[in-house]
Parts: sequence; C-alpha cells; structure tokens
Amino acid sequence: MRQKVSKLLFLKTSSKKPEDPFSKCLKSWGDNVEKLLEILSSHVREDEGNLDIASFPLRNTTSRATVFLKTENVVASGIELAQRFLEKYHLKSIFHVKDGEFIPKKGAIGEIEGNTYSLLLIERTLLNTLSLMFSTATVTRRFARKLKHAKIAATRKTIPGFSLFQKLAVMHGGGDTHRFNLGDCVMIKDNHLKLYGSVEKAIQEVKKISSFTRKIEIEVENMEDALKAVEMGADIVMLDNMSPEMVEKVSKKIKEMNPNVVVEVSGGITEENVSDYDIETVDVISTSRLTLSEVFVDLSLEIQR
Amino acid sequence: MRQKVSKLLFLKTSSKKPEDPFSKCLKSWGDNVEKLLEILSSHVREDEGNLDIASFPLRNTTSRATVFLKTENVVASGIELAQRFLEKYHLKSIFHVKDGEFIPKKGAIGEIEGNTYSLLLIERTLLNTLSLMFSTATVTRRFARKLKHAKIAATRKTIPGFSLFQKLAVMHGGGDTHRFNLGDCVMIKDNHLKLYGSVEKAIQEVKKISSFTRKIEIEVENMEDALKAVEMGADIVMLDNMSPEMVEKVSKKIKEMNPNVVVEVSGGITEENVSDYDIETVDVISTSRLTLSEVFVDLSLEIQR
Repeated sequence: MRQKVSKLLFLKTSSKKPEDPFSKCLKSWGDNVEKLLEILSSHVREDEGNLDIASFPLRNTTSRATVFLKTENVVASGIELAQRFLEKYHLKSIFHVKDGEFIPKKGAIGEIEGNTYSLLLIERTLLNTLSLMFSTATVTRRFARKLKHAKIAATRKTIPGFSLFQKLAVMHGGGDTHRFNLGDCVMIKDNHLKLYGSVEKAIQEVKKISSFTRKIEIEVENMEDALKAVEMGADIVMLDNMSPEMVEKVSKKIKEMNPNVVVEVSGGITEENVSDYDIETVDVISTSRLTLSEVFVDLSLEIQR
Repeated sequence: MRQKVSKLLFLKTSSKKPEDPFSKCLKSWGDNVEKLLEILSSHVREDEGNLDIASFPLRNTTSRATVFLKTENVVASGIELAQRFLEKYHLKSIFHVKDGEFIPKKGAIGEIEGNTYSLLLIERTLLNTLSLMFSTATVTRRFARKLKHAKIAATRKTIPGFSLFQKLAVMHGGGDTHRFNLGDCVMIKDNHLKLYGSVEKAIQEVKKISSFTRKIEIEVENMEDALKAVEMGADIVMLDNMSPEMVEKVSKKIKEMNPNVVVEVSGGITEENVSDYDIETVDVISTSRLTLSEVFVDLSLEIQR
C-alpha cells in the first residue's frame, strides 16, 4: 500500500472530566459490562461475515478517525462502554463527551486510532449501538425534565437482545430502569389477574412462593382493586390506563392507607401528556417510549488518513 | 389453583391462504431460520431471569390468548417465524394475517394456546419482536409504493443483534435487503477512498484479492469518480449525498457507458424526498430509515382464560 498513514499518536485519556452521578454507572454494573462487551463482539463477528474485502488490502496500515455527532440536543450514552469495546480491538480512543452529558451541538465527539481493518470492521457496530443508546438517553431526559414529583421509568418493551444497552441508556438519561426481566420483582399484570380471578387470590398465591426479599407489584385498573392491593400488602401498585383525574383520586387514597406503597402510573404516556400525570402522590411514571421510540441520533465516522 | 382454564382447543392452521411472493420467504432462508429461533430463545432466557414468580403458581394450567394489533395500516412481518417460535414452547397458534400482508385495521390478529407459564414467559419477546418487524416492513412498503423505477433497499444501519430480523422484515415490506454484512459484496466507501487515494487505486487493490464471483460496489460523490468507477469495472456505483439533478446527470452518463452497471442512490433519503430520486436511470435507492426509524406498531396479548 502506498497511501500515507497518520502516525500512531499516543492518545491520553482526558484528565479533567468533572465527576457526575453517571461516571461510575458502568463500573457498578460489574459482570454486566463483560456481558455487553461479549454481545458487541458477537455483533462484530456477525457483521464481518467472511471477510471485508474492501478493507483487507489496508490491513497492515494504521488510521485515525473522528466520530461525528450529526444531531443536536442529545444525551451521550455508551461512551465508556465504547472505549472498553474499542480497547478489545486494540483501538485507542478519546471521547470529548461523557455518559449522561447533554450535547447541544453537532460536531466531533471523539477520535479513534489504530489498525485500519479493525477500525472499519467495528465502525457500524459502534455507530449503530451509540446511536440507539444516545436516542434512548435523550428521550429519557426529555421526559425526566418535564417531571417535578414523579420519576420516569422504562418498561420491558425493549428491543429484544438490546435491552441491557437500553436500560443503561435510561440510567444515563436520568430515568429508572424498572425491572430488567421477569425475575427482578414479582409483577402481577392484567393477564395474571384474569387467571387468578381476583387481586386477593393473586397476591395470596404469589406470596406463598415469593421470597421475603422480593417486592410485589400489581397492575390495577380501578379504585377497588388498588385499595385491595394495598390491604393485601403489595409494595408497588401500578395504575394502568387511568385518566389523570382518576390517578389523582386513587393515588391519594393509596397514600392515605399506606404512604410507603409506591404508586406507578403507566399506559398511553406521551411527552405531551406526561405532565398531567405528575401528581404529588405519584412516585413513578413508566412508558415504552424510552426504549421503543424513534431513533434519531445520527453519527458518522470519518477517517482522517 | 382454582381458576377456570379454557379447554385445550386443537387449533388447525388455516387452509385457504392465497399464495404470495413472501409465503416461501422464511423457508428459503434455510439455516437462518434456526439461527433466528435460537436468538429468540436466548431473548426469552434473558427475559425470564431467575423465575417469573407471578406466573409460577399457574404453571400447571392451560390458557388461550389473543394477539391484538393496536395500530392501523401496517404490514405483517415475523408471523411464520412467530409460529415456529411458539412451537418450540409447545404453544399452538393460528394467525389471521400472513407475512407481507397489508393490514388496514386494528384488531385480533392471532390466537395462542398452551401452558400458561410458557405463554406469559414468551409474551414480551414475541410482541417486542413482532412490533419491530411490523414497523420495518411497514416503513419499507411506504417507501416502495412511492417508487415507479427504483427499488427501495435497506442498509447496514440496523439494530445490532437484530439485523437478520430487520432484513427479513424489509423483504416482507417489498424491499431489497442490501448486503447482510461486510462479506456479502465488496463495498468501497468514502473512508476507503480516502485511504486508497483514488477510485482507480481502490478498485485495483480490491480486485487483486476479490473472487470473480463477488460484485464490487463503490461509493462516489462526483461525476468524475462515478465514470472512473464504471471504466474500472465496478458492478454497482453508489451516488452518495447528491441532489436529484446531479443524480440524473451522473446516472444517465453511467448507463450510457454501461447499461449493466447498477446505480444506487443513498444519503439523506426520506419519505418526503424519495420520489425526487426515482429517476429512470436509478436502479436502487437505499436508506437507513427502513431499519433505524420510528417503532410505532403496538401489539398486545390478552388472555381469554
């Protein structure tokens, strides 16, 4: 190959990043980080197929590339993960933004340097992952900033196989992950209620086998079931598909009976109506819009030679 | 458990479905189907966590459930896959819609019957997968119907780990999958061009190692590079980020030189401007909007007891 290749610059990680609540987010995930990295590697392997022939002749060269953000007013997410991921491919990186940071403007957000084949190999996995995580973090923040009383939370309506990434992005956007899977907390939903026949019966049956260490949540659609749930010792009562007026009435009653019961509101929540549900007696508002919503963050990688 | 459980109805698969180009789609995927089913099972395992305690007391009962479509004007996708998936969990199913079918109205689209724990276990994986696949197929169809000359195609801007599902959905929506991964066809992109230095050099280097069985595509941004690419024997020339006027000029020249060269247009294509690029000398228009676009198809599963 005859093209000029930029010299390997020994990139140092920026030293004066301010501390923020999310900076330790990834580390605290422990083994999940390894799991995420393993998933990302499997995506790379899938994307490589047999061989990237267009990049193969460049395999003994080194390149430097810039990652560009092409969308305004977004929240960064997946940056720390991306750096760990790039390390696995022996690529050095510096990012100028950090997880949870609001970025008002388009522009360069990071530099990557290393073997050209590796760089072009991981490009799409890196950008697709970041663009999805940025989008989730951004939507989460937009919801979170509209709320004074309640916390915004995700649901299990996530992208199959991508849900761990999305839950991390929800944290970066300032939201609550809600449960990661069916085993996280006992949740009695409308379908369960139909099968058990009543709130009373459902909670009774579930309590027989659930450990005392585990919270019990129940989804209800009317005042009577809500109050019965509190009486039966539910830790969390989810008010599903109720009007804001109904939510106010039911949640007040719940808190009067037991102020420690967590009140969650869900069903048909949008950026437009979320404020209507931000009632003092509501603790959490959950919506699938954080994770199954528009993907709008556009990122690109440009080789600098 | 004392609640009533519907009797196991031996559901028969509907016999008079009309043939359509997509009905054999899944079968022709061969081993990929097994791969998709394995991925879906891994999603179920991840979603189960330790145990779904809310459903555990119902483990010896049988239920029947209806899948409801809560969005209008969509294209079905993932139905045949869903049936194979449900079989793995010993759940019988009938769907009233088939892959590639346009569905103008909301309503029941299928029935599932079998063990209650299994049914509630796979619910979210099933619905999340179908809702994403329906969305991709629907967006694809919306683009496809706007075109008279060119074919609509996806890109590699997909959801990491979910791209095979999305490519199948693109087929159901009437689009071209484009390449599945980097190994599918040689594609020389802007970053490669920068590193090789010229179109000539890039194609020369790539041809040295690429098998004669493999097509070579090159991304260009101006007339000069486009014509050089044709001269050098590129099979596909992709015109990136050009105005419709420029595309018309360049694509006509390409076809004059060699009518067998496939002309692809990409970069900033939206539902609003796609018709402007639907020029007689353009063969394919590709966009990430098919796979990284809004997810809007809402599905629910309702137990009938």
